[in-house]
Amino acid sequence: MNGHHAFISPKARIGRNVTIGEFTIIHDNVIIGDGVTIESHCIIGRPTPLAEGTPLTIGEKSLIRSHSVLYEGSTLGAGLRTGHHVLIREKTVAGLELQLGSFSNLEGQLTIGNHTRTHSNVHLGMGSRIGNFCWFFPYVVLTNDPHPPSDLCIGVTVEDYAAIATMSCVLPGIRVGTRSLVGASSVVNRDVPPETIVVGNPAKVIGPTSNIKHRDGSGESAYPWTKHFHKNYPKDAVAEWMAAHPKVVTKAG
Amino acid sequence: MNGHHAFISPKARIGRNVTIGEFTIIHDNVIIGDGVTIESHCIIGRPTPLAEGTPLTIGEKSLIRSHSVLYEGSTLGAGLRTGHHVLIREKTVAGLELQLGSFSNLEGQLTIGNHTRTHSNVHLGMGSRIGNFCWFFPYVVLTNDPHPPSDLCIGVTVEDYAAIATMSCVLPGIRVGTRSLVGASSVVNRDVPPETIVVGNPAKVIGPTSNIKHRDGSGESAYPWTKHFHKNYPKDAVAEWMAAHPKVVTKAG
Amino acid sequence: MNGHHAFISPKARIGRNVTIGEFTIIHDNVIIGDGVTIESHCIIGRPTPLAEGTPLTIGEKSLIRSHSVLYEGSTLGAGLRTGHHVLIREKTVAGLELQLGSFSNLEGQLTIGNHTRTHSNVHLGMGSRIGNFCWFFPYVVLTNDPHPPSDLCIGVTVEDYAAIATMSCVLPGIRVGTRSLVGASSVVNRDVPPETIVVGNPAKVIGPTSNIKHRDGSGESAYPWTKHFHKNYPKDAVAEWMAAHPKVVTKAG
Repeated sequence: MNGHHAFISPKARIGRNVTIGEFTIIHDNVIIGDGVTIESHCIIGRPTPLAEGTPLTIGEKSLIRSHSVLYEGSTLGAGLRTGHHVLIREKTVAGLELQLGSFSNLEGQLTIGNHTRTHSNVHLGMGSRIGNFCWFFPYVVLTNDPHPPSDLCIGVTVEDYAAIATMSCVLPGIRVGTRSLVGASSVVNRDVPPETIVVGNPAKVIGPTSNIKHRDGSGESAYPWTKHFHKNYPKDAVAEWMAAHPKVVTKAG
Repeated sequence: MNGHHAFISPKARIGRNVTIGEFTIIHDNVIIGDGVTIESHCIIGRPTPLAEGTPLTIGEKSLIRSHSVLYEGSTLGAGLRTGHHVLIREKTVAGLELQLGSFSNLEGQLTIGNHTRTHSNVHLGMGSRIGNFCWFFPYVVLTNDPHPPSDLCIGVTVEDYAAIATMSCVLPGIRVGTRSLVGASSVVNRDVPPETIVVGNPAKVIGPTSNIKHRDGSGESAYPWTKHFHKNYPKDAVAEWMAAHPKVVTKAG
Repeated sequence: MNGHHAFISPKARIGRNVTIGEFTIIHDNVIIGDGVTIESHCIIGRPTPLAEGTPLTIGEKSLIRSHSVLYEGSTLGAGLRTGHHVLIREKTVAGLELQLGSFSNLEGQLTIGNHTRTHSNVHLGMGSRIGNFCWFFPYVVLTNDPHPPSDLCIGVTVEDYAAIATMSCVLPGIRVGTRSLVGASSVVNRDVPPETIVVGNPAKVIGPTSNIKHRDGSGESAYPWTKHFHKNYPKDAVAEWMAAHPKVVTKAG
């Protein structure tokens, strides 16, 4: 099932039922789980001394879309799905079912929990610590240098279920609290409390997330988003969310 | 005229005088018009069930630059010109002579009129409706989710001749009026009236576009831009614009 | 040392100890210095009539990472290092040891001094004039069109040692002074004086850069950054910086 013009190192450890596209290069220090699909024009396990010999491990049933570059030295859980033109640098540890939109850029030395997702063009700076079920929308940047350029790297922390909307920038060392919402085009220079909306440049608290009504006409709050947004999340997580919020709003058609 | 290392499906319907670069993949469900050039390292007609069997159609005399990925299920008019590393998802319908800057990302289910242009790194969210002769500058984002993440997709509408300047973000469901101008780094959360300038976060009306003087020293207004900017637009459109605005300002050298 | 599936024009002038990756295309009008490494999936010397026959010259010991596209007609000094998916258009003249982060886009007709660096996704508009030892952080955009769209191209000037932080946008014709700092997510619509911090949309002066304390606990100013940030800069430059600022702060671990 592999491309006639793919280069696959005989040293790479490749599981069963793996598909590798044309013009893709698989380097030596790579462990690929069963059922993984790697599309064309990718580079998998690009060597770097910064990986200190650690392999790139890609969990089972992952999908790497075309033109993506994944460095040696990261461990990515089962069910990873990337867009096209994605870059993942070394020493990134991600949990299950990470989704990354096209052109997203993970700068290395990141920790990411389970079921976190980014839309396109998200830039996660080196040293970021990201929880479970987080969401990043297009052109969000997590920074890490408090007075650029310097040798300091003070990563951002994003807690479980937080959502950061389009074009927002989070400054070094900031903590974005659980189930909080950062509005579009915000600059976050203070910690965001849990279940709170912040908006603006600089971002200011405008109230609890429960104040935002769902636009489906139900009159229900749109947050926590786990009440109504369930697309492709694990059944057990969704069952738990629905039990906690029995009055689930209707999905849009 | 085709690359020795291109993969071209025998099922693809390819016109006359088509050039296909090295390391490019042409999938099955593709209709390519006469005189089209597709550069190297591209993927044309990437399959997706979301296309529901609809082919990718590329109009005649189009140019697709390298490393671009176009999905099955879109219809793109004659004279399309893309930059490098462009992504066009399924169910996008575009008119004549669409121009897309490098790294631009069309997320699918878009409608775009004739002669619209984007600079580099423009992100047009799913469900956007875009008119004729529109302009998008680098890092502009059209969003669609009113309380992210949700199942709602409320696209932005951009009317004919509107221009949206660098790094601006338009919120879901907003209408950007004809011949209006959104200033750089704005966040547009209200409809923009026709022939109006809006600027800021959130964007506020600062007056009619006719207030902006052209910096060529002529003392003329810089808007409507059709008075003075004619580069590669069709002759009949330019003739119409010049007839409407006989005192055309001098082009810069 | 060259890829079996690279296409290398016999007309290209290629130095000694040059490494060229798989699936890379080297066009005719190219001069590559000794010891250069070009990774896979690149296009080097892409033809354009705008280059007017001028070759692409890449200085010795440069590193071009994968999926990058460099046009004919630019002269890039020794020690260039690009990230992945970088685009450099024609008629760009850059000095020694330019570093460009992944997805960076140099739009052509740029002049850049020595030892300047960009992080990922930096967009340097056509006609920008950039000095020595400058720094650009992710998603910075230098614009050039004062009333888009127009035929005017009024580039930005960035002076030596200036640093522009994440997601900032500099408007056409603006001068960013030497050793100044533009804070994150700013929109710069006035000239920035030397050794000054500006922040906001629109950006306002908030004081001299010397007001910013280094977060290493030393109580020292974090600027000029040449006091404490020396990573991979030439030894003679660093010696000069240390002589000017004998009380150098401690590097973070």
